[in-house]
Amino acid sequence: MFLRNYWYVAAMPPELDGGALLGRWILGEPVLLYRTEDGAVTAMKDICPHRSARLSAGERDGDRVRCLYHGLEFGPDGSCLRIPAQDAAPPEGLRVAGYPVAEKWRLIWVWMGAPEDADEALIPDFHWNDDPDWYPVGDYMHLDCHYQLLADNLMDLSHEAYVHRGTIGTDAVSETPAIASRDGDHVIVERIMPGCPAPPFYQKLKGYDGPIDRMHRIHFDPPATIMIESKSSPSGSNDPDDGLEYRVLCAITPETDDTTHFFWAVPRNFNPEEPVTEMMYQGSKAVFEEDIDVLNRQQEVLDKVEGAADWQNIQSDAGAVYARRVVEVLLAKEAG
Amino acid sequence: MFLRNYWYVAAMPPELDGGALLGRWILGEPVLLYRTEDGAVTAMKDICPHRSARLSAGERDGDRVRCLYHGLEFGPDGSCLRIPAQDAAPPEGLRVAGYPVAEKWRLIWVWMGAPEDADEALIPDFHWNDDPDWYPVGDYMHLDCHYQLLADNLMDLSHEAYVHRGTIGTDAVSETPAIASRDGDHVIVERIMPGCPAPPFYQKLKGYDGPIDRMHRIHFDPPATIMIESKSSPSGSNDPDDGLEYRVLCAITPETDDTTHFFWAVPRNFNPEEPVTEMMYQGSKAVFEEDIDVLNRQQEVLDKVEGAADWQNIQSDAGAVYARRVVEVLLAKEAG
Amino acid sequence: MFLRNYWYVAAMPPELDGGALLGRWILGEPVLLYRTEDGAVTAMKDICPHRSARLSAGERDGDRVRCLYHGLEFGPDGSCLRIPAQDAAPPEGLRVAGYPVAEKWRLIWVWMGAPEDADEALIPDFHWNDDPDWYPVGDYMHLDCHYQLLADNLMDLSHEAYVHRGTIGTDAVSETPAIASRDGDHVIVERIMPGCPAPPFYQKLKGYDGPIDRMHRIHFDPPATIMIESKSSPSGSNDPDDGLEYRVLCAITPETDDTTHFFWAVPRNFNPEEPVTEMMYQGSKAVFEEDIDVLNRQQEVLDKVEGAADWQNIQSDAGAVYARRVVEVLLAKEAG
Repeated sequence: MFLRNYWYVAAMPPELDGGALLGRWILGEPVLLYRTEDGAVTAMKDICPHRSARLSAGERDGDRVRCLYHGLEFGPDGSCLRIPAQDAAPPEGLRVAGYPVAEKWRLIWVWMGAPEDADEALIPDFHWNDDPDWYPVGDYMHLDCHYQLLADNLMDLSHEAYVHRGTIGTDAVSETPAIASRDGDHVIVERIMPGCPAPPFYQKLKGYDGPIDRMHRIHFDPPATIMIESKSSPSGSNDPDDGLEYRVLCAITPETDDTTHFFWAVPRNFNPEEPVTEMMYQGSKAVFEEDIDVLNRQQEVLDKVEGAADWQNIQSDAGAVYARRVVEVLLAKEAG
Repeated sequence: MFLRNYWYVAAMPPELDGGALLGRWILGEPVLLYRTEDGAVTAMKDICPHRSARLSAGERDGDRVRCLYHGLEFGPDGSCLRIPAQDAAPPEGLRVAGYPVAEKWRLIWVWMGAPEDADEALIPDFHWNDDPDWYPVGDYMHLDCHYQLLADNLMDLSHEAYVHRGTIGTDAVSETPAIASRDGDHVIVERIMPGCPAPPFYQKLKGYDGPIDRMHRIHFDPPATIMIESKSSPSGSNDPDDGLEYRVLCAITPETDDTTHFFWAVPRNFNPEEPVTEMMYQGSKAVFEEDIDVLNRQQEVLDKVEGAADWQNIQSDAGAVYARRVVEVLLAKEAG
Repeated sequence: MFLRNYWYVAAMPPELDGGALLGRWILGEPVLLYRTEDGAVTAMKDICPHRSARLSAGERDGDRVRCLYHGLEFGPDGSCLRIPAQDAAPPEGLRVAGYPVAEKWRLIWVWMGAPEDADEALIPDFHWNDDPDWYPVGDYMHLDCHYQLLADNLMDLSHEAYVHRGTIGTDAVSETPAIASRDGDHVIVERIMPGCPAPPFYQKLKGYDGPIDRMHRIHFDPPATIMIESKSSPSGSNDPDDGLEYRVLCAITPETDDTTHFFWAVPRNFNPEEPVTEMMYQGSKAVFEEDIDVLNRQQEVLDKVEGAADWQNIQSDAGAVYARRVVEVLLAKEAG
């Protein structure tokens, strides 16, 4: 059961370079994505309606995609344009269902719900990923777990002190209570950590050699879009150039019931130069790999142990619990 | 659900050389095949009725097979001949069910239905595989898909233009309509291609340097026996020695619900000498490997995507659709 | 369906060395085992009740185990002792279920039933594994089959003549009838083999160069504890130093419905010195590996072939059949 009337990130633009036919499973459906010659992105079901070969295993012919099993050709709108050895126009019914698609904030989004409801204004605000004042890094990762385990993870950063102890975590994160609040479908979790030690990755990035004032504010929008504001500076400093500020943009897209696509970006507003960019990329990637290891094993327990999903909540779960409730209510609403 | 009252190819004779005990799953049942000392082939369930060890993991003792778990011995008719430490004759009930078996056309066939109905006259005509005027090559392959996907593939050769573009396919195959007809349980698909370009493999085989007249005629018999007549010659030539003629003999045997054994042979009536034999073998094998790749991925889609089997037919599907209907009607008949 | 009110071997003591947190699935449940600072072994469910991370992936802090997802800390009794950022005492309900555990005969045993019924007096007698007059070797192995297939195997040693032909088996084992008897839940199988050839492994161990008198007596206790007395000596010898006597202690612990832990030990009362110890270890291990190969394939047949479990019994099965009946009756009793 997935929320359908939402924009999900399906790909990063470079994945469509060079005329690629990208096949990717989204909400359990195979989706074909490619860029037409005018530069637009098109998305349709990645299945030939004739004999169910995957179109992504086919080939481009201009804007058409040709199935490489029996040669049927489809246009970017999914209509069949040619059937070998048949002169008559292909029947109307022989078409591939399309998905509304949009390219925004340097990401490719597909709308998995009723096409007539696709409104680009509903695309989450990830503008930091496409803003001259911010310097982003980002990548795609794959998880062998239900998408909400990743959302839970990001909504409760107290885990940084344990999972990310060697990189961005300190006890200040786990020991400082966070404040969770909910405004309609939007959930916010905020944690203010004045005068705390700098974690190893921050020391390396900014040369902090004393206590810092640190905060993060996590924003959740359903189904699983998370934006984290993260700021720190030397304790008591008034100079904004002394500090670190970045966003963590997390687009979580269910692949199947128990596997997940994760598109992340970390735009910062400091030190645009290369060595720092590389550090931000490698550091972020290392942190997410630590999470993935924990989450895949969590899924394994849920799969194998009866009753393992009967979780007991503690205070720091408030934000994740709100987020799950938002999704639950919306799922019931979509189910009618 | 499989048709049972049919002969299925179970093995190629060399697989039984050297006294081998060959264990192979057929229609979801483990079957043991071996050659007795008089040269006959015997087939029985590949399970010891005592503790269900596989007899093919056992050993030969003359014509007996001895289970290597507890030493029970069975004769080629499946009766238990000895139980260690028991002097009395083994009980009648302790026996392994046998299958009627026949060796014909250099293939080993088993009858999976009621033994009393096994009639060797019902074995499909593959005589080209055992005829001094024809020079065969052949092999065994394994597919991770339902057996009917392979039959569909062979009944509609328009796919040659796409799947086998680099070997035996040209647009002439896909662009020339085929004529499908049905006579009782027998289905025929014929395609006549006068004055068409020679595909790469034919150029290599026969040195064609101009247009050719080409034809193939596909014969289907249930459950999934397919024989393809294939002929070509330089356009307008009247000399039969100028041309290529071969048969493609396809014995498709379900292993399980979604895996398949494929025994193929390609006998030709030209150039009996070695380099051509090797070219025919390697060329045929390469072509089938291209098919298997497509078919295994087709099965993957059918397994994972709800509704993916709701296929839309085009004209070139006529033969495959007839063949599936034949099987469907016969299955209903066997089910009573 | 497993018997629960029994002691099962969960680990060998060296597996808990160095403060290890050992996670092992037992009867389908993940169990955490570790040794507290006073040297005692503790066992509890290997799942954090908060978000179901495995505690065995956590870390020790003295006698506490800390979950490395969000930092919750649990004492050896399973009670939660600390929640990061929460000053109040953790709620009583936030606890990990414990298992009674005992260390005896150089093995770690857990009680999988009602804790109040755990009585160490019920631990099977494996004293030969911890006795100055006996020189044991032993190890842990893993099987991909139902635990009762291993019990069946050990209850009918006639298979030695086939499975272990190159090591400890001779025809004398399969051709000599065994006497099975049952006393309550205890089953005994005895086989006396006077004046028989020595198997290869015995010749190597003891230099036997003529016929031997050999016997084994197998003791079964539910769920699947098996102790084999094994003795041999040169035929007619009256000198006990001429012979071989050892025990085979088999603790069979279901991991899941179709996988099994096997803890074995082979204590002997002769030649305590090193080369013989190594021979006993390597020889026993090789024999069990031969069994595992047979048993894993037996499970494969049972999984794949309908009706494959309709076994037909022979005389040598008497002990194994008794043992299965004992378990069946006890399962019905536990089910109430």
